[in-house]
Amino acid sequence: MMVKGIKGGVCAAKGFKANGLNAGIKNNIKKDMALIFSESPCRAGAVFTSNKVKAAPVKWDYKLVHESEYVQAVVVNSGVANAATGEEGMKCCADMSRKTGEVLGIPADAVLVASTGVIGKQLPMDIIYAGIDELPQKMEADEEHATLAAQAIMTTDTHDKQVAVQIEIDGVTVTIGGMCKGSGMIHPNMCTMLCFITTDCAISKELLQKALRAVTEDTFNMISVDGDTSTNDTVLLLANGMAGNKEITSEDENYRKFYEALYYIAEKSAKMIAGDGEGCTCLFEVRVVNALSKADARMLAKSVIKSNLTKAAIYGHDANWGRIICAMGYSGAEFDPDKVDLYFESNAGKLKIAEAGVQTDYSEEKATEILSQKHVIAVCDCNQGAHSATAYGCDLTHEYININADYRS
Amino acid sequence: MMVKGIKGGVCAAKGFKANGLNAGIKNNIKKDMALIFSESPCRAGAVFTSNKVKAAPVKWDYKLVHESEYVQAVVVNSGVANAATGEEGMKCCADMSRKTGEVLGIPADAVLVASTGVIGKQLPMDIIYAGIDELPQKMEADEEHATLAAQAIMTTDTHDKQVAVQIEIDGVTVTIGGMCKGSGMIHPNMCTMLCFITTDCAISKELLQKALRAVTEDTFNMISVDGDTSTNDTVLLLANGMAGNKEITSEDENYRKFYEALYYIAEKSAKMIAGDGEGCTCLFEVRVVNALSKADARMLAKSVIKSNLTKAAIYGHDANWGRIICAMGYSGAEFDPDKVDLYFESNAGKLKIAEAGVQTDYSEEKATEILSQKHVIAVCDCNQGAHSATAYGCDLTHEYININADYRS
Repeated sequence: MMVKGIKGGVCAAKGFKANGLNAGIKNNIKKDMALIFSESPCRAGAVFTSNKVKAAPVKWDYKLVHESEYVQAVVVNSGVANAATGEEGMKCCADMSRKTGEVLGIPADAVLVASTGVIGKQLPMDIIYAGIDELPQKMEADEEHATLAAQAIMTTDTHDKQVAVQIEIDGVTVTIGGMCKGSGMIHPNMCTMLCFITTDCAISKELLQKALRAVTEDTFNMISVDGDTSTNDTVLLLANGMAGNKEITSEDENYRKFYEALYYIAEKSAKMIAGDGEGCTCLFEVRVVNALSKADARMLAKSVIKSNLTKAAIYGHDANWGRIICAMGYSGAEFDPDKVDLYFESNAGKLKIAEAGVQTDYSEEKATEILSQKHVIAVCDCNQGAHSATAYGCDLTHEYININADYRS
Repeated sequence: MMVKGIKGGVCAAKGFKANGLNAGIKNNIKKDMALIFSESPCRAGAVFTSNKVKAAPVKWDYKLVHESEYVQAVVVNSGVANAATGEEGMKCCADMSRKTGEVLGIPADAVLVASTGVIGKQLPMDIIYAGIDELPQKMEADEEHATLAAQAIMTTDTHDKQVAVQIEIDGVTVTIGGMCKGSGMIHPNMCTMLCFITTDCAISKELLQKALRAVTEDTFNMISVDGDTSTNDTVLLLANGMAGNKEITSEDENYRKFYEALYYIAEKSAKMIAGDGEGCTCLFEVRVVNALSKADARMLAKSVIKSNLTKAAIYGHDANWGRIICAMGYSGAEFDPDKVDLYFESNAGKLKIAEAGVQTDYSEEKATEILSQKHVIAVCDCNQGAHSATAYGCDLTHEYININADYRS
């Protein structure tokens, strides 16, 4: 089946409105609050950070997603993460849900909350309340307002990130759309990958969660900007059923269509996040093929994508394959170094750099040309099994240091 | 017991000679070959990289240390790592041992080999042979020649690293001395922590290995410059027994004295390596105290020391404690974030930054002063158990990127 990408974001699916504005959390210019609202109640799926230090909104949403039968809105702020904020932080979440519910005329436990920004600071609740009052007044179901919301969740992302897709289920058009923000802990004290996906598909809560969990394994869980797993990472998936398809309740052909479309959204989002990583100049992709097991393939790909030395070499357009095989070696995965073939690939071509663990007589000039593109791929062929995995990241640059060193004056 | 640090390196202990010279592997200026020779046969202990991709000299030395009853020399080159070099690489090791044995008049299987440098290239054996011919001609048992050897194993280390210590065992003076080179994979394609320790202590091979393995856990295995575990990491310990003490054959008081002295050497070496990490401006130390178990303490300390975001914040003298608790959170260790107290400490003072997982009302000015020193310590008090661990690393700087990006022209 072909998945058809379309323009749009969280308002692409039927019945979803959005808005984004400057409430004054960061400063008086940048947008810092967003709202997603569905005309009718939604089933929700979610995946959260595996970090033991979980931000208050992560704990709050976990509870809501598991205990509320339906949700209908998500309110988001950027600028303050509401992480490491103790009891007061939990109360802020409850207050944000309650207040948003009041303004929208829906139950408090139907309002999910997300935050991204400085760790350790309390939310400025007076500003948040003012934002919540204003957000619903101009929310709309169009691309323009989806974009306002996508902009409002940015921290040091260099552009907003939206994606949408349509599929046909039993002759009915079903739409999935999403917005996300950058991975890594992008700004001084800032953190977090956030992703919000909306769909009008009718699907059981169980399968919604199952599909989200499964696609996350091969998409969001395979990106790394700096190896730092944030306290706030959240992916929320809201389904309001307004497409009018017969509800998907078993893992049939329709479920597989939905799964594939959701995978498209998640993979595009993951790539957008990795390719806009802190200070990066390129999207770096590591494809491990012919590994002994899926788990080995994942470990190998993630170890290479996280290697500072490999990332710095990619920045320098340097075909430093020794760093790649070295990172494979300390990954903990099972493989035979003496069987590995390595390739670099981009839209400038593909080059075999090492064969059976030993360097080939490759052209440095051609390698540099391949590595100078905006999307660079390292292919690690283990030549041992039939399993593969792909990880997404970026190069490690001077700008990363600039962004994260935060010379206070 | 007090351990007494003295001046010197691998020639501090009785009966050890050394030399270092430029053989022409790197260029015609920098020293790139070193020799350590003992007048009498030595028992050897060793620990090697855990990387699945092991350089040829690592495989070679592993075999020799386990199969040879005695060793008597170590020949080292910098410039080429002899890693990912297949069968040819293994033959180079055998040839280096054989040739060195011939020149010194000792068996080939008494000569250990170490290499550090570019991965994936074969050793220039004609140059290596010429170096092996020349090295023994001027080897001496003095500080000057120990320093020549220490300089010859450097890659982008900014200074040579030597340490020595004396203890009394049954009224006999026993000496341990060592030299080491930088951690991380310091230069483009360069790699490796190498450490060579010599002692005149008489001790059984079993206890020599046991002591080395144990001190390594808390010293060399607790340093990280960039999280990249090299293919060549090697620590060799040679004991020739010439001090004349009664051989240590059980874990008695004398063993404990030797252990403590060896710990001193290993800890000083580890700190020197971390404090001279790639492009760094300070030695960063992470002390985890009152953790539930030793394993938890180690995981927590190593996770923080490896965090790019924490390292960049230290570079920026930024008391960004959220990054530290975040790195603790994704370490995989068991702990309660709500019980953690965090301190920054240096010779400018000590400051409590967070208490019970929430930020204190600390002075940013004071924090910046503390973080602007050459040796910065983060103390993470888990307030849960009685176990502690310390990790050593450095900050992440623009210079790290310069060193590792290797813009080829």
